[in-house]
Amino acid sequence: MPKRKDKLTSDIGWSTPDQITVRGLDLPSEILGEMNLGDLAFLLTAHRKPSPEESKVFNAIVITLVEHGITPSAMVARLTYMGAPESLQAAVAAGLNGLGTVFVGSMEGAARLLYEALPAERLGTGADLEAIAKEVVADHAARGQILPGLGHPLHKPVDPRTPRLFEIAAQNGLSGEYVALMQCLQREAEAARGKALPINATGAIGAICCEFGFPWQIVRGFGVMARSIGLVGHILEERSDPIAFELWQRTEEEILRNSGPQSR
Amino acid sequence: MPKRKDKLTSDIGWSTPDQITVRGLDLPSEILGEMNLGDLAFLLTAHRKPSPEESKVFNAIVITLVEHGITPSAMVARLTYMGAPESLQAAVAAGLNGLGTVFVGSMEGAARLLYEALPAERLGTGADLEAIAKEVVADHAARGQILPGLGHPLHKPVDPRTPRLFEIAAQNGLSGEYVALMQCLQREAEAARGKALPINATGAIGAICCEFGFPWQIVRGFGVMARSIGLVGHILEERSDPIAFELWQRTEEEILRNSGPQSR
Amino acid sequence: MPKRKDKLTSDIGWSTPDQITVRGLDLPSEILGEMNLGDLAFLLTAHRKPSPEESKVFNAIVITLVEHGITPSAMVARLTYMGAPESLQAAVAAGLNGLGTVFVGSMEGAARLLYEALPAERLGTGADLEAIAKEVVADHAARGQILPGLGHPLHKPVDPRTPRLFEIAAQNGLSGEYVALMQCLQREAEAARGKALPINATGAIGAICCEFGFPWQIVRGFGVMARSIGLVGHILEERSDPIAFELWQRTEEEILRNSGPQSR
Amino acid sequence: MPKRKDKLTSDIGWSTPDQITVRGLDLPSEILGEMNLGDLAFLLTAHRKPSPEESKVFNAIVITLVEHGITPSAMVARLTYMGAPESLQAAVAAGLNGLGTVFVGSMEGAARLLYEALPAERLGTGADLEAIAKEVVADHAARGQILPGLGHPLHKPVDPRTPRLFEIAAQNGLSGEYVALMQCLQREAEAARGKALPINATGAIGAICCEFGFPWQIVRGFGVMARSIGLVGHILEERSDPIAFELWQRTEEEILRNSGPQSR
Repeated sequence: MPKRKDKLTSDIGWSTPDQITVRGLDLPSEILGEMNLGDLAFLLTAHRKPSPEESKVFNAIVITLVEHGITPSAMVARLTYMGAPESLQAAVAAGLNGLGTVFVGSMEGAARLLYEALPAERLGTGADLEAIAKEVVADHAARGQILPGLGHPLHKPVDPRTPRLFEIAAQNGLSGEYVALMQCLQREAEAARGKALPINATGAIGAICCEFGFPWQIVRGFGVMARSIGLVGHILEERSDPIAFELWQRTEEEILRNSGPQSR
Repeated sequence: MPKRKDKLTSDIGWSTPDQITVRGLDLPSEILGEMNLGDLAFLLTAHRKPSPEESKVFNAIVITLVEHGITPSAMVARLTYMGAPESLQAAVAAGLNGLGTVFVGSMEGAARLLYEALPAERLGTGADLEAIAKEVVADHAARGQILPGLGHPLHKPVDPRTPRLFEIAAQNGLSGEYVALMQCLQREAEAARGKALPINATGAIGAICCEFGFPWQIVRGFGVMARSIGLVGHILEERSDPIAFELWQRTEEEILRNSGPQSR
Repeated sequence: MPKRKDKLTSDIGWSTPDQITVRGLDLPSEILGEMNLGDLAFLLTAHRKPSPEESKVFNAIVITLVEHGITPSAMVARLTYMGAPESLQAAVAAGLNGLGTVFVGSMEGAARLLYEALPAERLGTGADLEAIAKEVVADHAARGQILPGLGHPLHKPVDPRTPRLFEIAAQNGLSGEYVALMQCLQREAEAARGKALPINATGAIGAICCEFGFPWQIVRGFGVMARSIGLVGHILEERSDPIAFELWQRTEEEILRNSGPQSR
Repeated sequence: MPKRKDKLTSDIGWSTPDQITVRGLDLPSEILGEMNLGDLAFLLTAHRKPSPEESKVFNAIVITLVEHGITPSAMVARLTYMGAPESLQAAVAAGLNGLGTVFVGSMEGAARLLYEALPAERLGTGADLEAIAKEVVADHAARGQILPGLGHPLHKPVDPRTPRLFEIAAQNGLSGEYVALMQCLQREAEAARGKALPINATGAIGAICCEFGFPWQIVRGFGVMARSIGLVGHILEERSDPIAFELWQRTEEEILRNSGPQSR
């Protein structure tokens, strides 16, 4: 439990009759018309404006997380909207609730693994990335654990997002030792396991988050904010071209067939 | 209830082993590095890329909705995170759940009112906006209803976001009859009520959404996606500088004092 | 917006080092071992202990709402649990989010309709229920509205829960003019429409809630508390015998087939 | 990830036009009027009807979890309801989202600890509970961990719920080695730490859940279903005697005072 405190404070921003400030910037004159939505997300998580290069890279990684097709989250948002069309916000909220360890775990896990294998203090000291990668791969193999951020059920032998994200990072000065270490991990893991293990989008994003210096615990937040945009898109499509009712009816009918009285 | 259907379909996007498409655009080559986060939100709601001018205006309106200080939503996200710090997504979801009629109603309401007063088919036909505004104001007064989008408890006599949003809209060719009608409504309402009734940010955004041609039912979705970014910011601050525990303790103590056994 | 107030108060209960009180009853000695879970729900909504007869009827109506098979809510809870198995509470919450107007509307609607047709002040004054029912049915027909609480897609010609709920209510002194009016409405509606329109479970529960005198706005709360129990049951089954992953995979595959590149 | 499967099945229940079955029982004739709400919760989690003795004990433990005053969950439900009064279900859902490791962890933890210290196979074999308790206490002390289920910030030196819950369990044949082990743990911990460490309600409930044989992973579900009832009670009070608006206004004003422009 946290401690009691005398004063409630917040450094996010404040409003007076004629001023609105967000993280020290005047909203009307310094943010509106000057920043894009991704830049504002950066401001609220990094507590400073991104440089133009950072803006490019950060927007790219958050955009990558927005829309992944008919995920369980999208199904949840659509099924919820069918029952409560007056509460669009509750349908998005329901969809977000499932973004737990199974779906965002690998992005968090990749960032965490990279920080543990190469703590920030060792950056720029000539760390032997190949050796580190060998050790990490061996260690995970010994414990029977898979490496987060590697492998994809569909995108083989290459996840098409990864080379593009790494290219954007490199073009904007954000491809350093963490990206290189992620690539070493891939090579070592593929050699050890004898099969293609592409760096997937969550592995690429985890590595780039380390280049930014974001704590690994924040990474899930990027997934959550991005996915809320994608879920609004799914709900809008559900309004005009619904699938939730059909999904429900099929499921109910099949379960009655398989588990109802005539199945005995 | 919707009808049954033979086929489940979705036009949002699809993935094959080497391709990922969102609303007809190739994610790696046409979106990543080419669009910002607000542009992608536009793509998913308008189903086409924004022009550079549209991008400027749309990013500004969504950004305006991101962060409004210690709102009930932000308090909810922080209190939820205190109990379930392992589930950041659930804290954001809880915060979104309260974005109902009270808080997003006026933005929806402003857009709806403008469309009803000036249906899209009448645009460009020389409609008499002053006359329309007079009628709307009189009609609301007769029914004892307030006009959505006008007035603000704190930002008086001007909501500092409104002139800036209207300026950005005008500079980018998105200030037409709906913005003008909103301004007529303000003048008529101020004259009728004899007090300052600034167009607040939700009124400005409602009017600009009409300039885009977004259906009023979608407008709540912009608030939801924007606020999810703001709530991540609050949760990150709650991690480093918590206020939820103090809020809880004070409330519990006061209620015990006021309603407990010694209050009888 | 509500008004400011000087003091925060709550009459639900309080705790001191050696006492815990809920709605004026001592939890350890007057509630634990003395009441069942339904009785406590009654205490928290009616603000008094139920009589033995009220306990029977109230437990029956809440129990009826607990479990309705593979509803959209149950699918949502299971799909959410698949992604965040560490957050059982978030899976239940997601499932509850869809209990909006579509699914609980008819129960609320039935109670509201009955109160509007027969205000509590008219009870015991010899109101002509047949005449009231005729008027309500004609009025709904004229406006093209269906009558809430009548008709069921599966349970025809009788919803098997309804006669049992009415029997329990009658045996316990809770079958009065509202139940009678609901039955009149059924007869009139069947005569007018020329087809079987069974009083469904939500109609029966709506009527019995009126016998209790519960405001119609509270009725949704009974559905929510009941369904949370049912959703825990679904999540436990999902743990041991999951269906969410299969549901997701089938949906994704079908949509790729119907809307992906090879569908063009 | 789970495996694909050919058939979707569920053993929870099924409906045909004239029958509704829950866990093998006919809802109208075997459940309605025959069971109380707690019994149904038992049926859905244990997959059998409780005996009268089990019914007494199970209802008591779930009831204990329903209402804990102005918890963060209750504050969340009330603040959410203020913004979306049309979505009572979303306010309950938001409140449930915070029932994570901090608040339900100790109940889960107590049950898990007891099962690990005394696996079910060792029941009835004359295990030396004092020796086990000594070891567990020493082990936790060595690792600097607190024992779940012991100690309470307010209820000292006795949590008034615990002796009553243990009494009800004993009167109904559900007080065996797990309850005894919990009591040994208390004695050992108090001796080792030199201060009062009452078995709190979550410790008592954890121990009784072990007597029932419930897996520790299910225990959180009891808290979730119980709390949803309590949250409905809070929302009803918020409707008639609101506190959320005042809580919000005070918080916003204090933060502006402490962190706004005049605080610099």
